Amino acid sequence: MTSEIFAIEKTVPQSAARAGILTTKNGVILTPTFMAVGTRGSVKALDPQDLKKVGSQIILANAFHLILRPGLELIRSFGGLGSFMGWPGPILTDSGGYQVFSLADARTLNEAGVTFRSPYDGQKLFLSPELATQAQMDLGVDIIMCLDECAPYPATFEETAKSLDLTLGWAKRSLEAWDPSRGQILFGIVQGGFYPELRAKAAEAIAAMNFPGHSLGGLALGEPFEERLLAIETGRAKLPEEKPLYLMGMGTPEDLIESVHRGADLFDCVLPTRNARNGQFFTSFGRLNINNARHKTDQNPVDPKCSCPTCRVFSRAYLRHLFQNHEPLFPRLATIHNLSYYLGLMSAAREAIMADNWPQFKADFYAARTGEA
Amino acid sequence: MTSEIFAIEKTVPQSAARAGILTTKNGVILTPTFMAVGTRGSVKALDPQDLKKVGSQIILANAFHLILRPGLELIRSFGGLGSFMGWPGPILTDSGGYQVFSLADARTLNEAGVTFRSPYDGQKLFLSPELATQAQMDLGVDIIMCLDECAPYPATFEETAKSLDLTLGWAKRSLEAWDPSRGQILFGIVQGGFYPELRAKAAEAIAAMNFPGHSLGGLALGEPFEERLLAIETGRAKLPEEKPLYLMGMGTPEDLIESVHRGADLFDCVLPTRNARNGQFFTSFGRLNINNARHKTDQNPVDPKCSCPTCRVFSRAYLRHLFQNHEPLFPRLATIHNLSYYLGLMSAAREAIMADNWPQFKADFYAARTGEA
Repeated sequence: MTSEIFAIEKTVPQSAARAGILTTKNGVILTPTFMAVGTRGSVKALDPQDLKKVGSQIILANAFHLILRPGLELIRSFGGLGSFMGWPGPILTDSGGYQVFSLADARTLNEAGVTFRSPYDGQKLFLSPELATQAQMDLGVDIIMCLDECAPYPATFEETAKSLDLTLGWAKRSLEAWDPSRGQILFGIVQGGFYPELRAKAAEAIAAMNFPGHSLGGLALGEPFEERLLAIETGRAKLPEEKPLYLMGMGTPEDLIESVHRGADLFDCVLPTRNARNGQFFTSFGRLNINNARHKTDQNPVDPKCSCPTCRVFSRAYLRHLFQNHEPLFPRLATIHNLSYYLGLMSAAREAIMADNWPQFKADFYAARTGEA
Repeated sequence: MTSEIFAIEKTVPQSAARAGILTTKNGVILTPTFMAVGTRGSVKALDPQDLKKVGSQIILANAFHLILRPGLELIRSFGGLGSFMGWPGPILTDSGGYQVFSLADARTLNEAGVTFRSPYDGQKLFLSPELATQAQMDLGVDIIMCLDECAPYPATFEETAKSLDLTLGWAKRSLEAWDPSRGQILFGIVQGGFYPELRAKAAEAIAAMNFPGHSLGGLALGEPFEERLLAIETGRAKLPEEKPLYLMGMGTPEDLIESVHRGADLFDCVLPTRNARNGQFFTSFGRLNINNARHKTDQNPVDPKCSCPTCRVFSRAYLRHLFQNHEPLFPRLATIHNLSYYLGLMSAAREAIMADNWPQFKADFYAARTGEA
């Protein structure tokens, strides 16, 4: 199965998992893969060389933040976000809908768009589907998102339905504002909260608009794991399989494995980068908190099965020393490991799919998570 | 002229400047050179590969801090500080005398040593010349310092003389506690404040003890530039030329050039690393504060004459964006530039000395400092 931008190389029987190749103007992306979060045009504590070393194929930035600072005009004068930040590969931007609703103050929302105050300087600003699409095109990135509204969790059926109607109307307008001749790919976003009827309606409506790719949004808001998986399955079932599917803002390693199993191709999440800064490492055997006293004299690397630049050189004891003394080297070394783990997990998942070994890989993934190295 | 550990390759007429080769157990160091400050076993925001990339031949750490955290026993269990922190090259430690007097609380000082409270946890601790020397030997580093007392600035002649007597007594005891068979080099420290008579006395007394190398301490405490240069000249004049001379805790690029001119070989200072974190870059044309509004849209690198990893990829506008948004990538990129500048300045000074071009080099250095690129 092949769409214009996405070729599925391999599928898995009794699973929706697949290995694909997504072609963007700045490079080819082997899926499934994880996108490191570089909200303001920088993946926290890493430079572009580090991003390559940890296996990044595509990174994520946020149009809302970049519009506010440093502003579109500056980034355009550099020829786009990639040149501005020194990252030569593909970039995906979120429109900033989520940030408008979670970060901005004094929002006034209507069919036309949303008026809000900048969290940076209180300036009054307006964002519409057209403006969000134009902004992302101006950023020169490879994959752009429709402006959407993310219903809160929990929300009533009526609230969720009303929010979905807004998102669907905005999706249509985003699509109309998009200029496909620029080689940038527009993804439609499936909302609908945790009401299967609304998720299905959302997915059907978005599928009917014929976007080059799809996103599942409004997940990982605190809902139970089972509700999350059901929402993914419900959305996926109504979307054409041949198009790439991006699961927005998710998640734990377990979330990623279960979502690959359910047919998702792209992921982003702040967990590996944010938790790194807080001293938490993701490993093949589960999570490791470096501040724990039992690592005080431990000469082992964080994950003996890991060959990332951090695990190759530094011990748990040294990393704990850096963390406890707030040494600015710590966030970088921890982020390098966590992103290596996330990206390595997705690349190993891809290999397993290609080698007809997905069920065993998934079983091994869970079996290794004993909490101890 | 050659001592056991130090060979002078080239001298300069009408100047005390020289190019030398200092041999330590972990490597050979071409002098003059600058040592990046890694107080707690980490040069802030840089990993060992970064240190190599900026041209580090030897780095500096601080015994006082490392004794308190993470403790000698842990570092010894790793086979020394180099293994603990993943730095394979030479390391010099300061004894921690300066830190005891500037950071610790509730100090009681006498001939035997100093009792103080740890700034980390209030624990009562004792440091003597013997303990400081043993601690540095246990750290496994290449060059170690005598325990000394740094007189404040300003200080009376009597205060300075009394402090000097203590330092000279401690120097003798540090020398006796030192085990030369371990291949670690002990430097005697010349104090004496800003009284030429006391500086000369200090240098004569230290020279008479026959240390393998010498340090000038108690400088850059806020004294005028001319007083500082006089103290350096006075100390240098009484020390044997064939031994390496380390100027402790100094200084600006101008300080370094003037001190090379006066015969100093090794330098350390927090300026390039600390100022980097505060947004100040050292460049061939002077200092540049990245927060300045005139850099807002500037696509030029920090220093167009610099070929460091930061200047090769990133613009002033992008660095300003990172700085203003407190992105943790900023300290690393800024530190990489500033250390590249300091280390490059010393390596260029060495080349100029070797090429009989020192006076021209010095003149060019000042001529380029116009404040504008």
